[in-house]
Amino acid sequence: MQTVKVKPGSSQRNWRTDRNYDIKVCPGLLEKAGILLKELGFSGKTVIITDSTVNKLYGSSLLHFLLSNGFDSSILQIPTGEEQKSLETATKLYIDLNNLKCERTTPIIALGGGVIGDLSGFVAATYMRGVPLVQIPTTLLAQCDSSIGGKVAVNHSGLKNLVGTFYHPRLTICDTDTLKTLSKREFNDGLAEVIKYGIILDKEFFVYLENSISQIHSLDNTALETIVNRSAAIKAGIVGKDEYDLGLRNILNYGHTIGHAIESSSRMTVWHGEAVAIGMVTEAKIAMRLGLLSESEVKRIVALLKEVGLPTEVPNVDQDQLIKAMQRDKKVVQGRIKFALPRGIGAADLT
Amino acid sequence: MQTVKVKPGSSQRNWRTDRNYDIKVCPGLLEKAGILLKELGFSGKTVIITDSTVNKLYGSSLLHFLLSNGFDSSILQIPTGEEQKSLETATKLYIDLNNLKCERTTPIIALGGGVIGDLSGFVAATYMRGVPLVQIPTTLLAQCDSSIGGKVAVNHSGLKNLVGTFYHPRLTICDTDTLKTLSKREFNDGLAEVIKYGIILDKEFFVYLENSISQIHSLDNTALETIVNRSAAIKAGIVGKDEYDLGLRNILNYGHTIGHAIESSSRMTVWHGEAVAIGMVTEAKIAMRLGLLSESEVKRIVALLKEVGLPTEVPNVDQDQLIKAMQRDKKVVQGRIKFALPRGIGAADLT
Repeated sequence: MQTVKVKPGSSQRNWRTDRNYDIKVCPGLLEKAGILLKELGFSGKTVIITDSTVNKLYGSSLLHFLLSNGFDSSILQIPTGEEQKSLETATKLYIDLNNLKCERTTPIIALGGGVIGDLSGFVAATYMRGVPLVQIPTTLLAQCDSSIGGKVAVNHSGLKNLVGTFYHPRLTICDTDTLKTLSKREFNDGLAEVIKYGIILDKEFFVYLENSISQIHSLDNTALETIVNRSAAIKAGIVGKDEYDLGLRNILNYGHTIGHAIESSSRMTVWHGEAVAIGMVTEAKIAMRLGLLSESEVKRIVALLKEVGLPTEVPNVDQDQLIKAMQRDKKVVQGRIKFALPRGIGAADLT
Repeated sequence: MQTVKVKPGSSQRNWRTDRNYDIKVCPGLLEKAGILLKELGFSGKTVIITDSTVNKLYGSSLLHFLLSNGFDSSILQIPTGEEQKSLETATKLYIDLNNLKCERTTPIIALGGGVIGDLSGFVAATYMRGVPLVQIPTTLLAQCDSSIGGKVAVNHSGLKNLVGTFYHPRLTICDTDTLKTLSKREFNDGLAEVIKYGIILDKEFFVYLENSISQIHSLDNTALETIVNRSAAIKAGIVGKDEYDLGLRNILNYGHTIGHAIESSSRMTVWHGEAVAIGMVTEAKIAMRLGLLSESEVKRIVALLKEVGLPTEVPNVDQDQLIKAMQRDKKVVQGRIKFALPRGIGAADLT
């Protein structure tokens, strides 16, 4: 028997192998988009993928900031909504990109929330085997969570993220001013994941959040920059240690075993962050029963979520439905439910 | 402005980041499949994806070799043919995999030729954001070329490989005995790429081929092992230096600018290797006109292809169609056609 040793990419350095990149966080950053892209060496054609809601708010200004920096940019607009995170929409976008004569070097700019980021990211990862991706998340959830970590996917056959891959952007631009056009409910929805970072990994940040909800809710620039930057740094740190979600990254699932189940059982009337908030409370109580969290820590978690205005109690959903949802999420293994529980506020050990 | 530096995967080692793997080449290797998979640490569920033709020949024996080594294996069979390299077939496979309760750790085994390798590879890369892939290529083209290098894709909207990614197997098993059930035409079709390696990179191998066509055509075990092993080593060497096809890897496109155009203009009546053979001759003559190849080198190339039984002259296709096909392949840039020409037999410089 003969053996050929294959060592993919062992001796190269280029934009695909050198995957380190920056997340820039600042109010008003959208207008720097063209300059930031030029600094990365991009020129010529770019394509913005966005939804109808975000397009109305920021599409034409982003287009202007790109055109005025010499880019030949177009906008591909899809309808707003989770149902667009599908292979069908991806398929339409492949054809649109081909019609626009996009090449392997043409950057795709994902402008919008989590659905746009996941969908555009998957399309960027797979169109012609991968083109450069720039993320411009415009919701708190996308800026603090979903745009970071390279997880891109579409739903299929009723299963969340069944088809996807890992693909990192070349740059992420977080303009915290875009958070000011979110509805209160959308903004709070994103805060659930922000609070989660404090609970699992950063006690100081948790205390900051306890003391700063009023500044955050009044959309103070410094507060917004702080929560986005700190959240991004925490998530980036975990991703740097467990890119492919094979171990360490699991702590990010705190609140999500129950959260996902509530979210899908509610047929999306309970939003992601809201469901995670309920999940975090329920799972905190489980952690307390297991001696991992103290009663006072659980009380602080519940108090902070309540102060934000997030729900903390399981809504009236069928328990069977919840269990079925957990089974679909592959969270039930040999009769046991898998949770990612905190061991004290901010006490996760990443080493 | 605050900046978060993201360094994906900077401090991890696991099956996804440690992407080095072996290509094993040997007659009769199929029966070792179970043992080789166990050696890699796999156990439990595996899924074989194959087509109806290959399934009839090798499906049940591979299944037996896996079951007898304790694997819980199933076969997903698709119809034979290039038209299966589609998002539609991939979509069906996602659902089948989910119905079989495949997890993120369940290896997919691609048993078949190039279509099966490209399609199953794409499905493995994207099902649940990536599951382990084992390639068992059964054609000469797949063993020597298409299974190596991580390029996986499906066709879409009439465009070859429009949707795909780069994804490497954990192991490739080349059982050279499977080459003995190929039709003469299929076997020769694969030889075109083998000869290409000699022309672009390995003069000694080219001379070996000139001297060994009769042993190769009589399917001598040593000859088959030699051509597969040498071809795999040459391609693996190039992939190791330019995984994402951003430069060096382009020399593998020798013969393909014209080859692809002929292949698609002929509506697949001219097969890939046949079209590449014609492309190599035409492009060798262009190289000669540019002073890159000598007349005697061109003659040796033509003579070897003829001895193999491959076509060497452009068939009766409409020139406009050829140009249109090259435009579709994005080979025509600003009025110029892009070729990857050899600079003397075996003389490419990989440094």
